[in-house]
Amino acid sequence: MQPALLSVSVRTRRTPFTNRVTAAGVKAYTVYNHMLLPTVFESVEADYHHLKRHVQVWDVSCERQVEIKGPDAFRLAQVLTPRDLSRMKDDQCYYIPMVDESGGMLNDPVALCIDDQRYWVSVADSDVLLWAKGIAAGLRLEVDVDEPDVSPLAVQGPKAEDLMARVFDDSVRDIGFFRYRKLAFEGKEMVVARSGYSKQGGFEIYVDGSEYGEPLWDALFAAGEDLAVRPGCPNVIERIESGLLSYGSDMTRDNTPHECGLARFCDTRAAIGCIGRDALLRMLHDGPSRQVRGVRMQGEPVAPCTQPWPVYADDQRVGQVTSAAWSPDLQINVAIGMIDASHWDTGTIVEVDTPAGLRLADVTALPHSSK
Amino acid sequence: MQPALLSVSVRTRRTPFTNRVTAAGVKAYTVYNHMLLPTVFESVEADYHHLKRHVQVWDVSCERQVEIKGPDAFRLAQVLTPRDLSRMKDDQCYYIPMVDESGGMLNDPVALCIDDQRYWVSVADSDVLLWAKGIAAGLRLEVDVDEPDVSPLAVQGPKAEDLMARVFDDSVRDIGFFRYRKLAFEGKEMVVARSGYSKQGGFEIYVDGSEYGEPLWDALFAAGEDLAVRPGCPNVIERIESGLLSYGSDMTRDNTPHECGLARFCDTRAAIGCIGRDALLRMLHDGPSRQVRGVRMQGEPVAPCTQPWPVYADDQRVGQVTSAAWSPDLQINVAIGMIDASHWDTGTIVEVDTPAGLRLADVTALPHSSK
Repeated sequence: MQPALLSVSVRTRRTPFTNRVTAAGVKAYTVYNHMLLPTVFESVEADYHHLKRHVQVWDVSCERQVEIKGPDAFRLAQVLTPRDLSRMKDDQCYYIPMVDESGGMLNDPVALCIDDQRYWVSVADSDVLLWAKGIAAGLRLEVDVDEPDVSPLAVQGPKAEDLMARVFDDSVRDIGFFRYRKLAFEGKEMVVARSGYSKQGGFEIYVDGSEYGEPLWDALFAAGEDLAVRPGCPNVIERIESGLLSYGSDMTRDNTPHECGLARFCDTRAAIGCIGRDALLRMLHDGPSRQVRGVRMQGEPVAPCTQPWPVYADDQRVGQVTSAAWSPDLQINVAIGMIDASHWDTGTIVEVDTPAGLRLADVTALPHSSK
Repeated sequence: MQPALLSVSVRTRRTPFTNRVTAAGVKAYTVYNHMLLPTVFESVEADYHHLKRHVQVWDVSCERQVEIKGPDAFRLAQVLTPRDLSRMKDDQCYYIPMVDESGGMLNDPVALCIDDQRYWVSVADSDVLLWAKGIAAGLRLEVDVDEPDVSPLAVQGPKAEDLMARVFDDSVRDIGFFRYRKLAFEGKEMVVARSGYSKQGGFEIYVDGSEYGEPLWDALFAAGEDLAVRPGCPNVIERIESGLLSYGSDMTRDNTPHECGLARFCDTRAAIGCIGRDALLRMLHDGPSRQVRGVRMQGEPVAPCTQPWPVYADDQRVGQVTSAAWSPDLQINVAIGMIDASHWDTGTIVEVDTPAGLRLADVTALPHSSK
């Protein structure tokens, strides 16, 4: 596809950071949860190199929160996922697959228990708000489900911890992976989690109140000048290398968590009452017949994958690739795909039908490694 | 905001017509229901003039269908809207406000009764699929809720009827406004409705099966050469002139149908069991305190409205503008806004706080007229 402009309207919502992102010269966006998500600043490749060496501040406000509040908050949260939430600690971030009645993925959010009777679900690109509200209405649960004015700001990269320690305090260094603390910025307590959509290390600040957006952005840039801090965004090359799936691309409602390699986040037998349980019990019994894998394609750098690319072996379709990019560090085209059981073993040779023709490829584990 | 590119991925889904739209030189898109929606071909203004004089073919696949099927189909459909569906005729297209438990707008789709026990709901930009599935799961209704492979293609403009008669047959001329017939294309029966997101007249073909997309597109262009047919898309100038609201821009979950001027589509007292009924009964009793209005702004052409512009009178905020464009035909800036009862009378003088400064404006009825 040729490059096309994005038409911005009120419907493609701005974020508390859009003024800063625009001033920083953002070059491209996508729309995610009806909101602007930056995708390119300098270039995808330059952004990638910088992310792996320094520290970036990402406007990921589009990771909207669905707040579930009230006496039945735990019950609704557990209805929404096959992961057993009873074992979730107060300071934990829980990656929770969310499925429909047939076990098809609806979202892969991160849940936080904010306090007694209050959860935040930080969602990928689908209206979990409507899903949760619909179930609550149908079951007549005693909960309030809403989207609060909370906008995650990610600080990612190897120097993220140093930058965060300057703007908050050294206690950020003690936050474990997928754990959070409530830390103050300008007197306002905010959730600060060690998490983020890269494997370069870092944090997500759940900016609680749009009015704190620009002051926090500015504080991070003022404190990080000697760390080469700059604006960034989820980087398609880095996330494919790291094996981070994108809901809507690498997994959809067609796929079970087992197909997506997320079975370890399902405690289906324990999660009594969760929607999709019957279907997932069957999946637990049978196992998936296809699963997410890495794919490495030979040849010149490929163009971005804008529609599934069929994967063939022995003239049979054995899967599809849904994300692909040239990896400067690995010097090969890295991809994420859904591969049939017959061909999902590491080292299996396949062909990928790209817009530039068939590419010889091999199936591999995720994350992509340098070997 | 400066122009920025749209990053396309598998998640921002292509349509059955994307190849044709791309070949036709589309200049910009938005993302709507996780799908590409073209927004500009030649230029917004050139597209506008052509639409009002000739005929255009629009890829509005992003008007996804939510199919509700099964013994409880009617019951679920009625739970989803305060409009009384018991009076809906078999060949009717019903504009149905959809609200949450507090009466806040979730979507403003068009519902069709396809056959006994089967509805299609043609949705604006929110995941009604998840809302309907959630309610069905909570209420344990005997329905199947899914997104079928159906992609609306609109044929809009004063010459639309002539073009449609050539590709289908003269019976399209007998289809009443917001009525439909099932007509065959290449042997496949499809819903053809007299509807569409413009006031220039025209049809929407519910293309039933992606494989019919390009053949139908090509047939329309082959048949319409002497009618000056060309690709188009919902046009922001024309839709503001015509007073067509955009969900997510001009109305959101903050607004009741009454605020959106949609009270005539609510039969709240009759719609027993619909979600939000209690809140809407209160609204029926009290009436709205603000409502959608036209706003006409003096001065030079304004830039597109990418965030709500406050509306002031006597130094008080009395509303906001959410869509705005220069109208070449009316030679004034036309807008859609939500205006407080104190200032919603036609002719009221207000000021709109645009990025280019305060603009003198007057409140008017919708659609915008040439007077």
